Amino acid sequence: MKNVALGIDIGGTNTKFGFVDQDGYLYGETSISTVKTPPGDIDAFLKYLHEEVEILRRQINEELQIVGVGIGAPNGNYFTGTIEYAPNLTFRGIVPLVKLFKLYYNVPMVLTNDANAAAIGEMIYGGARGMKNFIMITLGTGLGSGFVANGDLIYGNDGFAGEMGHILHKPEGRTCGLGRKGCLESYVSATGIKRTIFSLLAEMTEESPLRDVSFNALTAAMITDLALKGDPIACAAFDETSRLLGQKLSDMVAIFSPEAIFLLGGLAKAGDLIFKPTKEYMEKYMFQVFRNKVKIFPSALEDKNAAVLGASALAWKELGVHVH
Amino acid sequence: MKNVALGIDIGGTNTKFGFVDQDGYLYGETSISTVKTPPGDIDAFLKYLHEEVEILRRQINEELQIVGVGIGAPNGNYFTGTIEYAPNLTFRGIVPLVKLFKLYYNVPMVLTNDANAAAIGEMIYGGARGMKNFIMITLGTGLGSGFVANGDLIYGNDGFAGEMGHILHKPEGRTCGLGRKGCLESYVSATGIKRTIFSLLAEMTEESPLRDVSFNALTAAMITDLALKGDPIACAAFDETSRLLGQKLSDMVAIFSPEAIFLLGGLAKAGDLIFKPTKEYMEKYMFQVFRNKVKIFPSALEDKNAAVLGASALAWKELGVHVH
Repeated sequence: MKNVALGIDIGGTNTKFGFVDQDGYLYGETSISTVKTPPGDIDAFLKYLHEEVEILRRQINEELQIVGVGIGAPNGNYFTGTIEYAPNLTFRGIVPLVKLFKLYYNVPMVLTNDANAAAIGEMIYGGARGMKNFIMITLGTGLGSGFVANGDLIYGNDGFAGEMGHILHKPEGRTCGLGRKGCLESYVSATGIKRTIFSLLAEMTEESPLRDVSFNALTAAMITDLALKGDPIACAAFDETSRLLGQKLSDMVAIFSPEAIFLLGGLAKAGDLIFKPTKEYMEKYMFQVFRNKVKIFPSALEDKNAAVLGASALAWKELGVHVH
Repeated sequence: MKNVALGIDIGGTNTKFGFVDQDGYLYGETSISTVKTPPGDIDAFLKYLHEEVEILRRQINEELQIVGVGIGAPNGNYFTGTIEYAPNLTFRGIVPLVKLFKLYYNVPMVLTNDANAAAIGEMIYGGARGMKNFIMITLGTGLGSGFVANGDLIYGNDGFAGEMGHILHKPEGRTCGLGRKGCLESYVSATGIKRTIFSLLAEMTEESPLRDVSFNALTAAMITDLALKGDPIACAAFDETSRLLGQKLSDMVAIFSPEAIFLLGGLAKAGDLIFKPTKEYMEKYMFQVFRNKVKIFPSALEDKNAAVLGASALAWKELGVHVH
């Protein structure tokens, strides 16, 4: 029998999870739909999640003992174990996630913001090993962020620190999932670039296959494919998204002076299309003192799921086990 | 003979210093002009500073032994002991301050950003005692900031973290002291509100005593006096400054989730004129999760000079002495 931590990464669209031992070995991992169960019904979702975890556990050729659970979720609170007002989840208000999921696994259980979990994963298993000051940005349904300073993740006074997606880009701008206007993530995220495409379809006159796609049918991957082929609207959307991301990262550099910034998630998969202009704009807008000092890297855990590994590492930390 | 640390706070206009023992007792303190010596001549300034320090030392009725020096200065680097490209000082480029001042006092000497020094002072002697997460904002010639998370000041990878004054408010906006355009401190600071007054004198038509004052003659204190009397242009300037400060503080809350924010410096002396609307705008723009959680306080060390106390505390820390 092998002791493992169950690492879970709850996202707006998909929830990923896997079993990780204290050496960081991943025994098995899978992904389920976060939106398959009735919208807003957390009990139904956790029942479904538990069933799928047990299915995965049975598929593994070794008997696994779940000794701890680590969960990353948007607006997850490390101190209270609750998800609060997460704009990109269907669960509304304050959800006592740890309390409810302990009905299935009564073991030490920790929750944090999904991007914080990814930052822990990057620090322990990925490209940020040995770094004391770095920033993790996740560009998925929303924009998540985790900030590590002096070697420690910043949870803040109430456990909710690291919500860069909700800094205000434009008062009275685009409405986010919570009804707030002008949040950065309404512009810079997989969803944000899609919204930018539709704004550009209105502003520009160039022909493009994008003019034949509905809002609901459009994906970030389609935008990437078209930009690689030189589509003028897709290229303009990447430029606008990168300009804004680069500018806001230059602000974060002035505050944190990090060694590096890591990008993860759907939009980060666009590679040079997003990394190159983001770096250029960041340097352009950067306060002189910080110019050419800060690297932007893709997460070294992109394919391995940093958040699942990070969440499991958090669980091991909670159990008092030194993680390698 | 009493062992003391010499705490120095170098500002754009004035330099303050004093002698502090390891219990935080201030033996004497004074202020000299930072701009009395020839502009850009760091050697002349340090010679003058040394003379004035010795004059103060002779005035005190006890023999003081300077065992350490702590210095707060704009763009002061904790790791290298240099001031680099400080927009609000006349000393240009990279100034090896610690190396040069050690010619006068060959004792352990530390340098940091003036706002970082103030944050340390607030944490050890002021209103942030017992807080693990807070933000210190100084509103003087520029906008300085010090960020404390998990109980530690954030220096960042290169020692320059905490430059909130140089986040970008408006690309292609007002030029700052370094020639960069649109820095927050060009809008929110004692200098910033003065610039806003002149912009409003152009935009508005109301009569005001401000129409008889030249740019060079106008001070933040005059703007405060007029706003207290209901002058429409002075009131509009406070409203505009507070709106922008409140908005940017709501961004910082989303990142840090601090317990409190402290305001210090010339503009903070305006009291309710700045605190009340800044708090209102901060709450208005705040991401829901953080609403009504974060207090804004005047520095508890306003009259005692937080930066001098903080710089001396840093020196004691460097000497390995636990500060009370």
